[in-house]
Amino acid sequence: MSSEMNGAESLVRTLLAGGVDVCFTNPGTSEMHFVAALDKVPGMRCVLGLFEGVVTGAADGYYRMLDKPASTLLHLGPGLANGLANLHNAKKASSGIVNIVGEHATYHIAHDAPLTSDIEGVAGPMSHWVKTSPTSGGIAADGALAIEAARQTPGQIATLILPADTAWGPATGIAETAPPTAPPKVSDDAVKAAAEMLRTSSKATLLMGGAALRERCLELAGRISAKTGCGILTEGANTRLERGAGRVQVNRQAAGNLVLVGAREPVAFFAYPDKPSLLMPKEARSTKLADTSDDMEAALTALAIELDAMNTPPAGVAQPRRPEIPTGTITPASIASILGAKIPEGAIVVDESVTTGREFFPETAGAPPHDWINNRGGSIGYGLPVAIGAAVACPDRKVIALEGDGSAMYTIQSLWTMAREGLDITVLVFANGTYNILRGELSNVGVRNPGPRAVNMLSIGNPSIDWVAMAKSMGVEASRAVDCAQLSKSIDAGLKSKGPYLIEVVV
Amino acid sequence: MSSEMNGAESLVRTLLAGGVDVCFTNPGTSEMHFVAALDKVPGMRCVLGLFEGVVTGAADGYYRMLDKPASTLLHLGPGLANGLANLHNAKKASSGIVNIVGEHATYHIAHDAPLTSDIEGVAGPMSHWVKTSPTSGGIAADGALAIEAARQTPGQIATLILPADTAWGPATGIAETAPPTAPPKVSDDAVKAAAEMLRTSSKATLLMGGAALRERCLELAGRISAKTGCGILTEGANTRLERGAGRVQVNRQAAGNLVLVGAREPVAFFAYPDKPSLLMPKEARSTKLADTSDDMEAALTALAIELDAMNTPPAGVAQPRRPEIPTGTITPASIASILGAKIPEGAIVVDESVTTGREFFPETAGAPPHDWINNRGGSIGYGLPVAIGAAVACPDRKVIALEGDGSAMYTIQSLWTMAREGLDITVLVFANGTYNILRGELSNVGVRNPGPRAVNMLSIGNPSIDWVAMAKSMGVEASRAVDCAQLSKSIDAGLKSKGPYLIEVVV
Repeated sequence: MSSEMNGAESLVRTLLAGGVDVCFTNPGTSEMHFVAALDKVPGMRCVLGLFEGVVTGAADGYYRMLDKPASTLLHLGPGLANGLANLHNAKKASSGIVNIVGEHATYHIAHDAPLTSDIEGVAGPMSHWVKTSPTSGGIAADGALAIEAARQTPGQIATLILPADTAWGPATGIAETAPPTAPPKVSDDAVKAAAEMLRTSSKATLLMGGAALRERCLELAGRISAKTGCGILTEGANTRLERGAGRVQVNRQAAGNLVLVGAREPVAFFAYPDKPSLLMPKEARSTKLADTSDDMEAALTALAIELDAMNTPPAGVAQPRRPEIPTGTITPASIASILGAKIPEGAIVVDESVTTGREFFPETAGAPPHDWINNRGGSIGYGLPVAIGAAVACPDRKVIALEGDGSAMYTIQSLWTMAREGLDITVLVFANGTYNILRGELSNVGVRNPGPRAVNMLSIGNPSIDWVAMAKSMGVEASRAVDCAQLSKSIDAGLKSKGPYLIEVVV
Repeated sequence: MSSEMNGAESLVRTLLAGGVDVCFTNPGTSEMHFVAALDKVPGMRCVLGLFEGVVTGAADGYYRMLDKPASTLLHLGPGLANGLANLHNAKKASSGIVNIVGEHATYHIAHDAPLTSDIEGVAGPMSHWVKTSPTSGGIAADGALAIEAARQTPGQIATLILPADTAWGPATGIAETAPPTAPPKVSDDAVKAAAEMLRTSSKATLLMGGAALRERCLELAGRISAKTGCGILTEGANTRLERGAGRVQVNRQAAGNLVLVGAREPVAFFAYPDKPSLLMPKEARSTKLADTSDDMEAALTALAIELDAMNTPPAGVAQPRRPEIPTGTITPASIASILGAKIPEGAIVVDESVTTGREFFPETAGAPPHDWINNRGGSIGYGLPVAIGAAVACPDRKVIALEGDGSAMYTIQSLWTMAREGLDITVLVFANGTYNILRGELSNVGVRNPGPRAVNMLSIGNPSIDWVAMAKSMGVEASRAVDCAQLSKSIDAGLKSKGPYLIEVVV
């Protein structure tokens, strides 16, 4: 180890030693020593974003695919602030991320320069772990703590604030990150209570979330379902669901008592006048088999053994099915059929289709095995960045991003990063020219006969966005589809391409 | 007043009664009652942005032109988070803004729905005043408090959090906002100390900021300068500087002792190894004539009277001068000359030109009277949104936005709002394909011979952005200029247009 190593270099080396070898970046002056260290230390893949929401969302997508944290590099409080919305989504998805946020030199902060702000205050609401590292000698150790915090089960948002003099001052070497600890096994009592509920309820459902949505857990759930007749349900939005032909299917309607497996009792997305916040029927009960911090596969195995279901063939296995390709006008239903017909094996579908996508699940259930990712935090603009992270994590798999036009615009700079990195992503933008979901929400919250000004605030069709020009302006190939034949052909072109491809789907 | 008025309507009516009649919006479900109220209450101009950084930056620009707050409408914690970076810039510019941030219904928050977050925590670092309004009967009074906080001298960021049940529950009427109080006069001692310094220093400078940069204050400074030989200086970045032919010029180099007029002792933008944080020479002293909260015109008048300078013709008045239009390659110097030749009377120049714009001041000093706006907070992505706010505030004046390509991308969704509202803005994007400022910063922070990976992190030219396609994708007319003749012609086209027009300036 060179005695001339500075704090930034010791941090980069510590990240690599701790298994963090991807950094999504949008740096500024205060991060220049970190950037410079990248040339001294081989092994860190750096992916540049032109806006910080791209950077943090990409780190979320990366974690969802690999169950290991990436780092981000952000410029002071405002740079972190720009990344907060997608950190919110990542936090709700239990994705582990190590944020490195530059800060003024420690002695400069008191002078209240233009970019000075309360970075810890900005970080707090969307982070599990926050620390400003005061010395160049200590940054490596703090980096190791940040990695340990991020790779907890479930993952956490760790924000490490790096003052410029901490980066440029002398350091002595790498700090070692403690190896990840295995998640705890659930208690026998929890297993017995779940088994009892499944045995004795006239109707019951396994409500699955987080890591319970992987193939092996779903298979165990399928055996339990076959044995007991219970349903298998997921929450409204899934971190990553392994689904498709040969895998056990889930549905979205709860019935009877609930056994919670990495999921919570269902809560309404919003409150509405005179409607309940909790979506569980009042007469239903719930019991928790496993928390998101528990070993869910072990929990489901124990439950299956308790119910003598380990050798029961799983119920609800999806049969291979490719729908017919429809003709004529593009509708949500016809998009669903075309997707079902086209999704390739191993695809990663990042779904931010909002209103358009409500019908996509049944028609795509029999496509070859693939992953389906939803927004857990509800802050729109997560889809394109998460697609970037998924593509960086899994370069051999096709990523398909399904985007509402309104949501795509929040982090539209993502297209540039897709082009720069040649990421294998096909983006479908459903261009309906409205915040369509809000049209429905107006009436859900009790507004009758909204006036023209209210309707105008929900319309984004004036001017209409030319998505093909938008994509091409950032180096992404693109085409427009106004009927099913064109959509089918465009998707073929996107899937055949090995780089990013955008389709404007006129709906 | 209708007895059926709900909280949202009482808030909209209170805003209007308090003189807040523009709302920059990006709403979601929790704000639907506020949106619906807009149709019941005439008089609120609503301007939609497709990203919250557009919304908050626009409110900043609006305040800078009119010295009165606009409101914003933002969706929960993540929506506010997306607007924070430009709230940071607005805060540093002392712009008054009333943020209305939707929140879940009070009883729904405990259920930790996907969009639940600590909104007050998110608001805190970038707000002067934060309140969650717990009841529909009290929201009007809280709205009045928020307006009062925002229109302090200097302006403040007031963030009012509006739970959904506060919006939809019953209200009784409007709350009255206390009239703004006049800023205090400075003390005789402050005036005498400033006069003494100017009389006795071999070299002295008036360092002016905030509202002292308006024509009338600068004229007084010019008289004082003529009388005492002092220089007139502004801070590195100005909230809004009234300049051009017939107005007293300022420069950017401090010399000798400083009299502070709404400005602070100069501080380095960043700290660098072995360089000082304070930019004032050690032997220099400073005295404060007026704070940003004081009546600066009265302070300068008192100082001019004390120095018997009221009838001294002001020094440093800019003479009308239109530079020759250069030919050949586009350089920062040739852009400066073309701008100096073209800036129309009454123009509002929003400058986020970063490296390209460093030479613009001298060549534009003799153009007809115009305003020049800089970024006070240093978080890039402020320029296009501030241009929107300035154009909404001053529909009869031409806005010219000077943008680096890197900075334009942070809030590129601004172009869509410009097209939607038909705003009279000419945007010049200086497309150098790099975060050029960071190239210099690498060496400023002491990095010698940056390696290819570091350089790559600062290059945004791969892929190169097609700015003409980008603009047209969002409904904005555009052209590309690769030499001075084309640039001159493009600027003519932009200035002749009554709507938005973007010029890609290839540098």
